[in-house]
Amino acid sequence: MKEKSFQPIQEIGFSSLIDKIKIFEGSSRKEVCKGIGDDASVQMVNETEALLTTSEMFLEGVHFDLTYHPLHHLGYKIVTAAVSDIYAMNGEPVQILTSIAIPNKYSVQMIEQFYRGVDAACKDYNCTLAGGDTTASHQFLAISVTAVGIAENNKIIHRNGAGKDDAICVTGDLGGALAGLRILMREKEYWKSNEEQQFQPDLQGFEYVVKRQLVPAARMDFIKVLKSATIKPTALIDLSQGLLADCKEIAVQSGWGVELFTPAVPISMETRKVADEMKEDVDKYAFYGGEDFEMLFTLKKEDVESFASIFDDFAVIGRMTENKNEFRINTGEGESIEIDI
Amino acid sequence: MKEKSFQPIQEIGFSSLIDKIKIFEGSSRKEVCKGIGDDASVQMVNETEALLTTSEMFLEGVHFDLTYHPLHHLGYKIVTAAVSDIYAMNGEPVQILTSIAIPNKYSVQMIEQFYRGVDAACKDYNCTLAGGDTTASHQFLAISVTAVGIAENNKIIHRNGAGKDDAICVTGDLGGALAGLRILMREKEYWKSNEEQQFQPDLQGFEYVVKRQLVPAARMDFIKVLKSATIKPTALIDLSQGLLADCKEIAVQSGWGVELFTPAVPISMETRKVADEMKEDVDKYAFYGGEDFEMLFTLKKEDVESFASIFDDFAVIGRMTENKNEFRINTGEGESIEIDI
Repeated sequence: MKEKSFQPIQEIGFSSLIDKIKIFEGSSRKEVCKGIGDDASVQMVNETEALLTTSEMFLEGVHFDLTYHPLHHLGYKIVTAAVSDIYAMNGEPVQILTSIAIPNKYSVQMIEQFYRGVDAACKDYNCTLAGGDTTASHQFLAISVTAVGIAENNKIIHRNGAGKDDAICVTGDLGGALAGLRILMREKEYWKSNEEQQFQPDLQGFEYVVKRQLVPAARMDFIKVLKSATIKPTALIDLSQGLLADCKEIAVQSGWGVELFTPAVPISMETRKVADEMKEDVDKYAFYGGEDFEMLFTLKKEDVESFASIFDDFAVIGRMTENKNEFRINTGEGESIEIDI
Repeated sequence: MKEKSFQPIQEIGFSSLIDKIKIFEGSSRKEVCKGIGDDASVQMVNETEALLTTSEMFLEGVHFDLTYHPLHHLGYKIVTAAVSDIYAMNGEPVQILTSIAIPNKYSVQMIEQFYRGVDAACKDYNCTLAGGDTTASHQFLAISVTAVGIAENNKIIHRNGAGKDDAICVTGDLGGALAGLRILMREKEYWKSNEEQQFQPDLQGFEYVVKRQLVPAARMDFIKVLKSATIKPTALIDLSQGLLADCKEIAVQSGWGVELFTPAVPISMETRKVADEMKEDVDKYAFYGGEDFEMLFTLKKEDVESFASIFDDFAVIGRMTENKNEFRINTGEGESIEIDI
């Protein structure tokens, strides 16, 4: 079969594109022991410590919408996204670099607002804003953020360490960021169709989910607990793509299947309220909604109880099964559905 | 005076914008000893070694034009730009992370071409491609690149170390990248005005400058020489913005003035030929043309001769003067002009 010379990326998806790119590794250097395929790269700096590096990109109109995203919140959020990847390796962020390409329509004051948010997040996560790039853009703001962290070698947790029968756990609650986005988009639509210049969005009763969308927090508290804990999760990833997609990462890389128990998935009252108003299935918010930045991790089942005695903001939502590549959802109403993700 | 609430960035320029952003430093962590304001940030990893990190962004239509920039050359060039910043601290690059936001018009094959170039550059500069991000974009390709390097603490060379009377030196020749761009733009204009689909650009006789624009090389050879040398430059920067702008960085940060001798600035024959054809002043190519990725450095004047015995591809083009913030150009025809940059 002749290879297609123009294959659209949508046809294979970004996940398969990454698989194709993975073969391009440059020189293999012995100190870089984990490259593409985890939350961050790992570079040994001495016998006991490793350096973690992660980089992400955010585009106006694709990843954020400035009609409802204040720039200082955006600055905060991009740092959250980056440090969350360092936490997802059980590391500690040390420095942040941000690059920003700015169209003419942005003022000096607006860019200062953005950096005020970056600054606030760096302070909250105890890391230094140490560099980056500022340059021109056409119409859209483009932002990239790099986080550099450190970790003790033997404390690093990868995506591929889950064992058969391990409990699948998640911190906090899920779907909130997507619920917040639904509310913000609804208000934007209302504003557009009514063309009221002085329009104030009605976010009352939705403060929690809107905050989850606009200024999410990374789970520093979870990593602090791990620091002194004797129990170590077998695998760890942060929820940025969505529960199913991120769960699949652990399953594929660890070489097992997954069974999730829908009723066990933690969802906030406000998220449920949004789904009700939108006449949508709240489970879909939890399964497919991205950017919650909660921690998804696996524990040996015998460790769950002791872990709960040192950290209480998590729920067991499923288990790793021996059926490699099988993704099963148990609805709690007697149904067990195999899904293709 | 009331502060303006909408001040366009063009009004103050990116350099002043960076000055305003510099105050946002996040937490100050003792291990991060150099943040914004050098070619790379410096993070101590142990008593003798430091980690160098640098990040840059490139946008289609602003920083590159795919009508004449093949994607594999572009992939190579963005790695060159990043490792050049690590070399400019006298460090060794270890890993590269690239993030890329891709519009629908790009195929899987095109993105593979880009990564082929990244891979080739990583191999040439002996570093590992260790991660990044792939995501969607609207119309334009957006690329960010991060390089992580290492250096011995006492070998790092900053921008601020130049002393009074130090010799200002530069590797290779200058203005070539801009000369190449001029030729490529001329061919593009010709193609547009003639609308020949099968048009082949006429680059004969301009191979050197076109290569300087499309696939520039970072000065790894210079850094290798420094590794075993007993002489250490007092200040070092890579020529990415252009000679005058980068020279100003050394002058301002070191707290001295600069005097450049125009006839000493190395310019290739091909660059001269392009300027002649375009009826432009070739000195301007050398002074204002960016992306040459040559090394601009200062040496104690008594070290120049010995340095020339271990590395021969450099020229002395001026000296640091005691007239702080004074930028003077000696034309070699008896004129000495003070310029404002």
